[in-house]
Amino acid sequence: MNNFVFHNPTQLIFGKGQLSHLSAKVEQYGKNILLVYGGGSIKKFGLYDNVMNILGEQGCNVTELAGVEPNPHLSTVRKGIDLCRSEGIDWVLAVGGGSVIDAAKAVAVGAVYEGDVWDFYSRKARPTKALPLGTVLTLAATGSEMNSGSVVTNWETKEKHGGPTTFPAFSILDPENTFSVPRDQTIYGIADMMSHVFEQYFSHTPEILLQSRWMESVLQTVIENAERAIENPHDYDARANLLFAGTMALNGFLPMGVVTDWASHSIEHAVSAIYDIPHGGGLAIIFPQWMRYVYKENVGRFVQFATRVWNVDPTGKTDEEVALEGIAQVEAFFKKIGAPTRLADYKIGDENLDVMAEKATPFGPIGNFKKLEAADVKEILRMSL
Amino acid sequence: MNNFVFHNPTQLIFGKGQLSHLSAKVEQYGKNILLVYGGGSIKKFGLYDNVMNILGEQGCNVTELAGVEPNPHLSTVRKGIDLCRSEGIDWVLAVGGGSVIDAAKAVAVGAVYEGDVWDFYSRKARPTKALPLGTVLTLAATGSEMNSGSVVTNWETKEKHGGPTTFPAFSILDPENTFSVPRDQTIYGIADMMSHVFEQYFSHTPEILLQSRWMESVLQTVIENAERAIENPHDYDARANLLFAGTMALNGFLPMGVVTDWASHSIEHAVSAIYDIPHGGGLAIIFPQWMRYVYKENVGRFVQFATRVWNVDPTGKTDEEVALEGIAQVEAFFKKIGAPTRLADYKIGDENLDVMAEKATPFGPIGNFKKLEAADVKEILRMSL
Repeated sequence: MNNFVFHNPTQLIFGKGQLSHLSAKVEQYGKNILLVYGGGSIKKFGLYDNVMNILGEQGCNVTELAGVEPNPHLSTVRKGIDLCRSEGIDWVLAVGGGSVIDAAKAVAVGAVYEGDVWDFYSRKARPTKALPLGTVLTLAATGSEMNSGSVVTNWETKEKHGGPTTFPAFSILDPENTFSVPRDQTIYGIADMMSHVFEQYFSHTPEILLQSRWMESVLQTVIENAERAIENPHDYDARANLLFAGTMALNGFLPMGVVTDWASHSIEHAVSAIYDIPHGGGLAIIFPQWMRYVYKENVGRFVQFATRVWNVDPTGKTDEEVALEGIAQVEAFFKKIGAPTRLADYKIGDENLDVMAEKATPFGPIGNFKKLEAADVKEILRMSL
Repeated sequence: MNNFVFHNPTQLIFGKGQLSHLSAKVEQYGKNILLVYGGGSIKKFGLYDNVMNILGEQGCNVTELAGVEPNPHLSTVRKGIDLCRSEGIDWVLAVGGGSVIDAAKAVAVGAVYEGDVWDFYSRKARPTKALPLGTVLTLAATGSEMNSGSVVTNWETKEKHGGPTTFPAFSILDPENTFSVPRDQTIYGIADMMSHVFEQYFSHTPEILLQSRWMESVLQTVIENAERAIENPHDYDARANLLFAGTMALNGFLPMGVVTDWASHSIEHAVSAIYDIPHGGGLAIIFPQWMRYVYKENVGRFVQFATRVWNVDPTGKTDEEVALEGIAQVEAFFKKIGAPTRLADYKIGDENLDVMAEKATPFGPIGNFKKLEAADVKEILRMSL
């Protein structure tokens, strides 16, 4: 286990009817609120009204930043920052999924920063302060509700980058708010949270016994509940287990003292910066191919993955066979739940492989399990066609 | 899974040489420090000097509260509170194990409270503020380094109670600081951290799939590293795995949405309030008997425990047989690592069973897996003789 510093100050408020905690938060953080949300599904399913009723009862002034895109746009973030300044906003409330929360984080740090918020994504600067941020999560997927990461796309330069921004002060997770998530979004969310664990699990760090088991636990729990939630979207327990697992997958609990990878995320960002495909869909395509490309770096790790997570029976098989069977199970699982497994599923051909490979490696080689240059990325993309 | 609110603001600083972080903490929290420690082993092994050198370099005024007892005394806490007031202390730095940290927590909340600090333990009041608290941990055991709990003994009334107090702002965990922990303390620490998981694991809450696996993971990791650390006290990885597992066992990560038990801790507190035995030793004695007394409340849970944690092979056995075999494994494990398994090991006979049973249930029945009245406690103690 490596040295580490862990700190996660987010208050997690989980369960049925927990939106009621919002009143106390107004007392704590103030009445001038920027409400950030996406395409309006929160209006369709009543959550918008519920939030506005609580804020109204508290006498809040609510300014709205609506229409945050999946893969949120830098231009939208800038609009939010302008609103914070012109309206004297006390704190930001994000109601939605990971994209909405990511945009709200960017707004929260950008509003109190002299320079341009893109500095935090292009690695020119690191944020040191932020407006308080609260979230009401509507999608089990990104983990953004309990970490400080944020991914924003600059459409002027076609760059999609992640940066550390700010932890939500609190996040309200009511599994019932995920009942209305459409089938495809549920599937993408599942692929997303599993991918987060993969990024942390495939590591050469020795003596990470507990951390490995915790990661395997998250994967097993997601695998057990995925079809349950897809087949019966109103199954509270399945939705709750997924929502909880998704948050735990990327809140810093899993990788303490572990060297993590994150190459596949860089590759996916490069793909979706050009094609604007769903993040979870891109990850489901890329990860099995990344695994096939890198597993020889540490076959033992892939054997542990195959046997513990996928119950692959190693009897009479070589380590390599066991490892490859585990990888095949990942791909089969994604296929079974209805996730895409080929770039062709999004009608993406080989016309931009070089561009994407370059875009995936703007700061040099990516990943730690195996350092990937642009040429490696191109090969993984080719395998994903 | 039940509704829950989780919040753990402690910054965890883990690994070799991490004491160096202390300098930055002085800048953050101030130079007037109350240093709390125990019987002087930190002087013997150089840690005291290392801490004082760093604080000296920062120009700190250090006031000392030395000699904190195992099962810390209320009178010692009161002495620390007086020192905070008379010396204008900015923050409290605990260097030691769970008892030292528990006492420091009591001091931190007591110093800024108008009333008597015992109010927080006798459940008359709940603390709402505290002096900042930092810890340098020297023993893998109680988890106090990353939670808000504190247990203090009032020797005037022979009462030992736990209360929520304050989270450490930061905790520095260097596995090398546990190399000098004597064999018996290492063993008690192992029994203590395993007991913490037991208290959270034996629950009737449905749909706690991930939480259960995480708890099983902690137990498996402790089981794997226990003998390693006992046999070779300078094995960094074994010490690190235990230290990490002990912190994770009781920092609130495991029981999110889970109804926990804690009856066995109340029973042990009653025993050690009279006999002043080591907490971990008392728990190793009581837990297997508690398990035998309660397992019929949910045999399935004990079957899961036996098969997943202890690899009991269920083939051809009834559920009850599997459950009992798991419990026998707990007792056998404690015996194997050299923990006591009988009250007689501490020369405790049946002379105070009624007194202890009453002391264990001062606020009514205890536990949730099975509600225990004084008569139940007496029977468990009788089984433990």
